[in-house]
Amino acid sequence: MAQIKSIEQVIHDGAKLFMPSVSVDCVIFGFHDNQLKVLLLKMKGADQWALPGGFIYRDEDIDEAASRVLRERTGIQDIFLKQFHVFGQPKRSDKKFHLNMMKKDGIKVNKDNWIIQRFITTGYYALVDFQFVKPTPDFSSVSCEWWDLKDIHELFMDHKNILDRALETLRLQLNYQPIGYNLLPEKFTMPELQKLYETILDKSLDRRNFQRRMSGFGFVKRLKETRQGGAHKAPYLYSFDLKKYKKALEEGLQGGW
Amino acid sequence: MAQIKSIEQVIHDGAKLFMPSVSVDCVIFGFHDNQLKVLLLKMKGADQWALPGGFIYRDEDIDEAASRVLRERTGIQDIFLKQFHVFGQPKRSDKKFHLNMMKKDGIKVNKDNWIIQRFITTGYYALVDFQFVKPTPDFSSVSCEWWDLKDIHELFMDHKNILDRALETLRLQLNYQPIGYNLLPEKFTMPELQKLYETILDKSLDRRNFQRRMSGFGFVKRLKETRQGGAHKAPYLYSFDLKKYKKALEEGLQGGW
Repeated sequence: MAQIKSIEQVIHDGAKLFMPSVSVDCVIFGFHDNQLKVLLLKMKGADQWALPGGFIYRDEDIDEAASRVLRERTGIQDIFLKQFHVFGQPKRSDKKFHLNMMKKDGIKVNKDNWIIQRFITTGYYALVDFQFVKPTPDFSSVSCEWWDLKDIHELFMDHKNILDRALETLRLQLNYQPIGYNLLPEKFTMPELQKLYETILDKSLDRRNFQRRMSGFGFVKRLKETRQGGAHKAPYLYSFDLKKYKKALEEGLQGGW
Repeated sequence: MAQIKSIEQVIHDGAKLFMPSVSVDCVIFGFHDNQLKVLLLKMKGADQWALPGGFIYRDEDIDEAASRVLRERTGIQDIFLKQFHVFGQPKRSDKKFHLNMMKKDGIKVNKDNWIIQRFITTGYYALVDFQFVKPTPDFSSVSCEWWDLKDIHELFMDHKNILDRALETLRLQLNYQPIGYNLLPEKFTMPELQKLYETILDKSLDRRNFQRRMSGFGFVKRLKETRQGGAHKAPYLYSFDLKKYKKALEEGLQGGW
């Protein structure tokens, strides 16, 4: 597989190297300083930010293409990526916009070139450990950065819609699957776990209800240690019971039949 | 949109009419005589059965393509189709097999024709009311029939894998979402609902646990009527509380945060 180094190379070799009409886009979530973060790329030739994405090599599995994008943009691998939706509206690719964008960047492209076509994209999302990510731009971008979710109002093409849909999937997932592993440190306090849920849901939750419900699910366990050093009474530390966590991931929080 | 009437037409006009490399496949489930059924097509030129599927017109939304397939094969519309997975392994399309299949059917096709390419397919599934379906074959098939799920051991290409994955999604869904509307008559007995769950899960469930759990979910309500005419004590009839059913579909059976 030839690695792509420039837009010119995609224009010249894309039709030969890649599947026509299909792409992947990855919504990479991280959690840091009590903020839900999303990894974005600043596009060349457009004053816009985009989700990391890519094409699928002629002999490449689509899931591997998504993993490759994640690996190349973050430096991490073996992270679970979840397909969440296929975006296949005819109007999502705007030929004129793309032609203009490339023109602005000084790139000449024929309007029947491979890159100026309708693409159907498969959205994937991943929850990654913020501290291990080394954001790395690709051939189409000048930088790669974490953005606070709340600051993202507009993105390239339909990427805001893709991000919103990923977030919706993640929020639904909170109702029937556990979350937090990969996003929180190994040991955490109940308020920290609650803050994660509140950040994803973008609303406050009642402390007692949260604690009761979380205990009922059984995938967090209270440790004997407490968090030292605060001004208040030292709060208990918790960690995930990975066996129960994994079971709840597979069966849902209700358990299997 | 030109309707496709023959394989020859696809070979001749496919590249012009349809998106390259992408398709949809639909797993259409029904429930009848206490059996979970799947709608299948018997292929021309191959002694094999396949899932109903199709291509995506150049200016068509991918979800609309799936709805069109469902509509054309069943005669029903406005049924909720759910994307469940994208199948994008390079080896899923076997060129030789397709060339041979067409040859057997007396069709000449060049090996670089549009139809002899790698396709990435999006799987959709639907739960439909068996009694309203009029199975209708398409241009590539000689018949369209309901099969008992338990009798399906092998299918065209990777369609058995697609079916298995749809079934897996459906089984997981039982753990966190309600099911039964569209599949059961308006009024049903608790044993009938249990039988539906048992059929989808392919295992027996304890009667009391099932009843307790189902009551706890709150989306079925007991009516004042009983089912008359059996040899035993007349069992109570139930129906779905559609408001609660819909809420549980949206939030999961645990409810929202």
